[in-house]
Amino acid sequence: MCVLHSSTLCFHGFSRSFHQLTICNSSNSSHNSTGLIPPLNQSVVALILGDGPESKLYPLTKRRSEAAIPIGARYRLIDIAISNCINSDITKIYTLTQTNSTSLNSHVSRAYSNIGVLGKEGFIDVLAACQSLENHCWFKGNVDMVRKWLWLLEKHPATEFLILPGHHLYFMDYRELIKTHRDSEADITVSVSSTYQINSSSSSYGFLILDNESRVLGFKEESSMDIGGRNMGIYVFKKNAMVKILKEYLPKANDFENEVIKGAISLGMKVQAHMFDGKWEDMNSIESFYHANMEINLIGQDFPIYTMPLCLPPTQISNANISQSMIGDGCIINRCKISNSIIGMRTFIADGAVIEDSFIMGRDFHHTDLKNQKELGSCTPIGIGEQTLIRKAIIDKNACIGKNVQICNSNGVQECEREVEGYIISGGIVTVLKNAVIPDNSII
Amino acid sequence: MCVLHSSTLCFHGFSRSFHQLTICNSSNSSHNSTGLIPPLNQSVVALILGDGPESKLYPLTKRRSEAAIPIGARYRLIDIAISNCINSDITKIYTLTQTNSTSLNSHVSRAYSNIGVLGKEGFIDVLAACQSLENHCWFKGNVDMVRKWLWLLEKHPATEFLILPGHHLYFMDYRELIKTHRDSEADITVSVSSTYQINSSSSSYGFLILDNESRVLGFKEESSMDIGGRNMGIYVFKKNAMVKILKEYLPKANDFENEVIKGAISLGMKVQAHMFDGKWEDMNSIESFYHANMEINLIGQDFPIYTMPLCLPPTQISNANISQSMIGDGCIINRCKISNSIIGMRTFIADGAVIEDSFIMGRDFHHTDLKNQKELGSCTPIGIGEQTLIRKAIIDKNACIGKNVQICNSNGVQECEREVEGYIISGGIVTVLKNAVIPDNSII
Amino acid sequence: MCVLHSSTLCFHGFSRSFHQLTICNSSNSSHNSTGLIPPLNQSVVALILGDGPESKLYPLTKRRSEAAIPIGARYRLIDIAISNCINSDITKIYTLTQTNSTSLNSHVSRAYSNIGVLGKEGFIDVLAACQSLENHCWFKGNVDMVRKWLWLLEKHPATEFLILPGHHLYFMDYRELIKTHRDSEADITVSVSSTYQINSSSSSYGFLILDNESRVLGFKEESSMDIGGRNMGIYVFKKNAMVKILKEYLPKANDFENEVIKGAISLGMKVQAHMFDGKWEDMNSIESFYHANMEINLIGQDFPIYTMPLCLPPTQISNANISQSMIGDGCIINRCKISNSIIGMRTFIADGAVIEDSFIMGRDFHHTDLKNQKELGSCTPIGIGEQTLIRKAIIDKNACIGKNVQICNSNGVQECEREVEGYIISGGIVTVLKNAVIPDNSII
Amino acid sequence: MCVLHSSTLCFHGFSRSFHQLTICNSSNSSHNSTGLIPPLNQSVVALILGDGPESKLYPLTKRRSEAAIPIGARYRLIDIAISNCINSDITKIYTLTQTNSTSLNSHVSRAYSNIGVLGKEGFIDVLAACQSLENHCWFKGNVDMVRKWLWLLEKHPATEFLILPGHHLYFMDYRELIKTHRDSEADITVSVSSTYQINSSSSSYGFLILDNESRVLGFKEESSMDIGGRNMGIYVFKKNAMVKILKEYLPKANDFENEVIKGAISLGMKVQAHMFDGKWEDMNSIESFYHANMEINLIGQDFPIYTMPLCLPPTQISNANISQSMIGDGCIINRCKISNSIIGMRTFIADGAVIEDSFIMGRDFHHTDLKNQKELGSCTPIGIGEQTLIRKAIIDKNACIGKNVQICNSNGVQECEREVEGYIISGGIVTVLKNAVIPDNSII
Repeated sequence: MCVLHSSTLCFHGFSRSFHQLTICNSSNSSHNSTGLIPPLNQSVVALILGDGPESKLYPLTKRRSEAAIPIGARYRLIDIAISNCINSDITKIYTLTQTNSTSLNSHVSRAYSNIGVLGKEGFIDVLAACQSLENHCWFKGNVDMVRKWLWLLEKHPATEFLILPGHHLYFMDYRELIKTHRDSEADITVSVSSTYQINSSSSSYGFLILDNESRVLGFKEESSMDIGGRNMGIYVFKKNAMVKILKEYLPKANDFENEVIKGAISLGMKVQAHMFDGKWEDMNSIESFYHANMEINLIGQDFPIYTMPLCLPPTQISNANISQSMIGDGCIINRCKISNSIIGMRTFIADGAVIEDSFIMGRDFHHTDLKNQKELGSCTPIGIGEQTLIRKAIIDKNACIGKNVQICNSNGVQECEREVEGYIISGGIVTVLKNAVIPDNSII
Repeated sequence: MCVLHSSTLCFHGFSRSFHQLTICNSSNSSHNSTGLIPPLNQSVVALILGDGPESKLYPLTKRRSEAAIPIGARYRLIDIAISNCINSDITKIYTLTQTNSTSLNSHVSRAYSNIGVLGKEGFIDVLAACQSLENHCWFKGNVDMVRKWLWLLEKHPATEFLILPGHHLYFMDYRELIKTHRDSEADITVSVSSTYQINSSSSSYGFLILDNESRVLGFKEESSMDIGGRNMGIYVFKKNAMVKILKEYLPKANDFENEVIKGAISLGMKVQAHMFDGKWEDMNSIESFYHANMEINLIGQDFPIYTMPLCLPPTQISNANISQSMIGDGCIINRCKISNSIIGMRTFIADGAVIEDSFIMGRDFHHTDLKNQKELGSCTPIGIGEQTLIRKAIIDKNACIGKNVQICNSNGVQECEREVEGYIISGGIVTVLKNAVIPDNSII
Repeated sequence: MCVLHSSTLCFHGFSRSFHQLTICNSSNSSHNSTGLIPPLNQSVVALILGDGPESKLYPLTKRRSEAAIPIGARYRLIDIAISNCINSDITKIYTLTQTNSTSLNSHVSRAYSNIGVLGKEGFIDVLAACQSLENHCWFKGNVDMVRKWLWLLEKHPATEFLILPGHHLYFMDYRELIKTHRDSEADITVSVSSTYQINSSSSSYGFLILDNESRVLGFKEESSMDIGGRNMGIYVFKKNAMVKILKEYLPKANDFENEVIKGAISLGMKVQAHMFDGKWEDMNSIESFYHANMEINLIGQDFPIYTMPLCLPPTQISNANISQSMIGDGCIINRCKISNSIIGMRTFIADGAVIEDSFIMGRDFHHTDLKNQKELGSCTPIGIGEQTLIRKAIIDKNACIGKNVQICNSNGVQECEREVEGYIISGGIVTVLKNAVIPDNSII
Repeated sequence: MCVLHSSTLCFHGFSRSFHQLTICNSSNSSHNSTGLIPPLNQSVVALILGDGPESKLYPLTKRRSEAAIPIGARYRLIDIAISNCINSDITKIYTLTQTNSTSLNSHVSRAYSNIGVLGKEGFIDVLAACQSLENHCWFKGNVDMVRKWLWLLEKHPATEFLILPGHHLYFMDYRELIKTHRDSEADITVSVSSTYQINSSSSSYGFLILDNESRVLGFKEESSMDIGGRNMGIYVFKKNAMVKILKEYLPKANDFENEVIKGAISLGMKVQAHMFDGKWEDMNSIESFYHANMEINLIGQDFPIYTMPLCLPPTQISNANISQSMIGDGCIINRCKISNSIIGMRTFIADGAVIEDSFIMGRDFHHTDLKNQKELGSCTPIGIGEQTLIRKAIIDKNACIGKNVQICNSNGVQECEREVEGYIISGGIVTVLKNAVIPDNSII
């Protein structure tokens, strides 16, 4: 048949073995539209929060905002939140950032510039920090960042704002969240993870105390049996409530959980909880980022994940044993072993390499630059050299790992800063920096 | 760096083993622009010839034009000729067809609709056969097809027309061909393969007799030492020469080689040869199509190959031994062995499958349709079933190969028409038809 | 606000005078979604019918299909039906044609290639007539054209097919039509114009006889008080009903009204009427095409009309008196008078010209071609020359009207074929052909 | 012919009267490619400079960066510099800004996201000011802004950087500038306006002293006969020269003319002048911005100007007398008089209005918002009200000018700040702010 469905294929997960093809359930945004009136594409504006200058995902954020960090062989972190929005029929989206917005802009404009075409109202714009006559200093935090853009946000004829952290991994239909919000007539609705035990160590958000009708009464530091679950940092605000809180009630608040939500409760506003029992990862450290990527299990995942469409050649494999791994496009893979790993786009792997439990982000380089690289006399090619062993590591983009290198942290170092030498160890996980060169025979 | 070069990555080849990353030479269209005046993007119109209703690539052409046949895990045949054009700075392109143009239209419009934007003059339009007041019958052949469109072609302010067959596999810089044409002041220039021995059996084009200055004197049926090489079916015409030949001198001619070129020589026009020593495959049978795909060796290939950009998830491999193979995006590959094969986009391969020397084209299906398939009660999923062996076969798109199937033509049948059962054997190669269902335990 | 909504602006109408800005009502596809389950973007496939080789809109169809005829200064006829579909949330669209599909393909691929992106399932594909092994002859009519493509259409998991003529001018929310169809559980639903008196002379469709519940009982030749309205040629078919009718019940039928609808009634199938009281023009002659364009009155029009986005410079006017007219982009308008006219894109009008009651389609030429034109020595520039008078005429694209020309049919000729001289008179309206040259001082 | 050249139409100018259609000369980037090796699309990176927080174009820059200010009925300032680049075959472009980058991002990503497709290397990325670990303070000026991005710029395999101010109006083929630079083997080449008398009052750049071979010897404050012309603020730097100057030689320099160019001369570097005799406007005040727009005369202009393609309905005129004006798309113009004015996209003009010598920027509003406006009870519609007179004014986007308003500065006020009331007078020109409401019967 003639129709190539280029961008709507869903992200099938994988596991030990597939006895049959995973059948995706309905993933189209209109399927279970839950009859929300007004429809979300007209009434909800999503605000995806970038990050402040002190990211916990350093060194992955050295030259990019968190939202632009690569995940899952070909995606960027921001694609998760944006795809959740699109799949929930929310198409008016701002991404707020005050760090380097270049790669984020570049990605968003190439991947999503079609969002508002042909009968679909919509946009995805990056709101980068800026100076202005009335605003000579940097934003002081996420709440302040939203506050500074209120002049723009207020003009939207929206009924709700949806606040989304940009560095979480989860698949969620926000229509259910909005439904809870509208049904309960809350001022603010907080999405709450009911599977918090699993993630208890990996998140900086607090635990909520709820009443019988899931209204939020307050927060507790520690998880215990009598509380309702973990705050996910995902909030729906009535438009007017947000404007009032940020401008009038709490004009100095800078933190959503500790100042805005707690403040709103104190003020007697109605703060509702919406329970979410799906998988959810708050990637607030290199360790949790690594584990979220490694444990990515998307079998039965109903939602398509969008990103920049590409036109790379198929991956070419000369003789490899590959298990439990995900392989991006445009790779050249020689005689090697790969297990429990993610191999990003355009990765080159030489003969004899062994890659275990690792995330190789690939390269975004391009033949001309490659040629240039050769002219510049760089003797270590981008990619993984011969006989090299990589275990439990993150190799950022365009890194050149030489021959006979061992990156396996055999001494079990937990924390170690070797940025000059091209890597950092954090939580026991080695991260090789973007563009780093690790010479032949190195042992890390 | 922030720039993702989405569409210009070159098609790296592969072979037994890579000792280092293949460095692409300059592939940009302006690099070796050979100083042609006027520049080709303004002076040359390319005509890519589709096919008549009796294609030699049946059954691959059952529901599509030849130019839309899948090759190389993610491309279509037409992408080769179009990419050669783009890489040669030729951006005014017509594709002529008189068979089902739907999938061709669909592919071309999705892949190349940007060709004429932002300072680049250009277009790629499909000229489908049609009725009109003065033209109630179908075109009689390729020359007639060009003749019927002369009213449109004549209006272009071009100096040359470049005739390109749509079903060849080769990488060529047409700028060199045009240079030969302009330098020799020929009326027609014929591209000639000097490596004809290799392909002698696989092409329907004849051998040329040349003089010392590479002017074409005539044709010979058989290859011999005193001749200049094989006609490749690629011709440059001076615009005026083409108009005169098709309208006035040879108004009944239908075949380029036998009528137009030979006729032009008889008429005393200057017909020049341009020698080409690169690899070249004329896929004029299922057998030659199969071998062209199998032997595809693109190492050191300087040119990018364009096609429709996609946004598929990365291929997921649970435990596979893969050698000398090319793997497309969006596949799900379980415990299996794959050797010397091409695995197209979105292929599903079940546990225990063995795939050798085969071209699996993949599927263009989509989750909703998959769901639909389940509802319709189809019990054989699209893809390759458990414990199934496929050897030396072409599996067209969306075919459902059951469990314990053996497709290996163990009796060495050469020709066999079993279209009702879902396959055809031609030149000893089994081709399973698009959308065919091969039940469990079948032996072919 | 920063967002430019490029493609969703609605087509504001105009009339004698505007006392205030027309406020558009909700035009977004989701607004009044009438709760149709399943949603139309998943369950309805629209088939826009092109035309046979004997168009009644000749000479506008000389080198293009009807659907590609320019209307309203910057649109094409096909944009009306496609925009109605998009505004009704129907995004799976085929355009069927058996005439020259080139300009139609070109327009559709440039204007609508984004329809199926980012969470929106959808496509707009042109199904051009073609030869195939089983089908060596041309299609015999619209019904036959649909029948020949059944192999493709049947595969869609649709519940209804929506048949749309491509040459009507109207704005309709098909969701209401589909609702009538589903509510009445009809096999076929016919859209019926209740304002038929107005258009009684301009349509070839018949009048329907309905029962009390708007079920269609039959047809009458003449309009009378006891009948229900005029058939609009717009039909909804249950998928299965269409397949059965075209393949089994009426395998020879070629005409929808006379054979399929009447046949279905005879067979006892349920044929329902859906009343439509909006304006509707069946442009089945040059005269009705002319009047539809002239009387175009879109005030209060709620729907946006889509077409190819362009980047033309603003129109420049040196000294003009303009009344009751619509002016496209990129025009150069000198000292002249324009009244009751439509001036298409890139039109050039010289000093002293007077244009009344006319539709000037503009030009699709381009500076390089213009330059070329000059080189070719054409002394009459494209556009309207000095002191030239044009009254009640259609000037097709790229026509060159010289100086002191009078096109006003002062003798009141009704029909006249002067194709060699560049024009045709039909119904008293002069149509100057595309690319025609009308020399200085001509009187038509 | 079937091909609509959507984006390559050139911006024809207009003047008192056109005796014939302006024939554009070669505008394609390859036409006069002047044989530059390496070609510019591979070797030159353009840096378009945005603006600091204290723009001289306030209030037009209140909520947007200078580069996003509307000009010429449908363009933005940035389109001039970008179009010059594209027309000069320079396709690697960064726009640097430290003010609100939202509308700039939005415009650039919608208008130019296709620049790097299908064989064309290229990108247009916005580099917005940002915080980073090593950079906690805002940039101190244009030179500092470039310096802060050197880490990114250095990686490009470029031979030259081209520095372009974003707020100039001129049409220039940078290939000639680069040719002068390469031929003279200069470290820096400065583009010099030889028509400086005309613009002498309107620019902040200095006058250059040149030797016989056009080498720059120094600067003079005042124009005099013995000097070579005015600096245009357009500089070509050898890549290495720029890196050395910014990092090593002049690490504190903040101003290009006064610190970098003068410093380089002092250091003995070779600074060459390239003479430019075309029209050139440095829009460094509201007054010069106004005059540049009013005097825009582009007759014979060879270059296309690119911008965001749009799909607006044609402008509708009910009865207007229009002279020496430029009219954008999607306007509704009633009984009124317009002379010597620019009427931007989607402008509404009511009966009886008179507009003279003014620039009406239009609106970027959209039907939903319009509807919303009505709901909010705003009683003054966006646009120009009945019987209103506007003379010598700039009306920013979405302003609502009521009935019987007179904006004609009849007292000849030169400077006046009335931001609260919605306008500012500067250099005698009234500028009505974006979104401002001017009530009925106001007199300004």
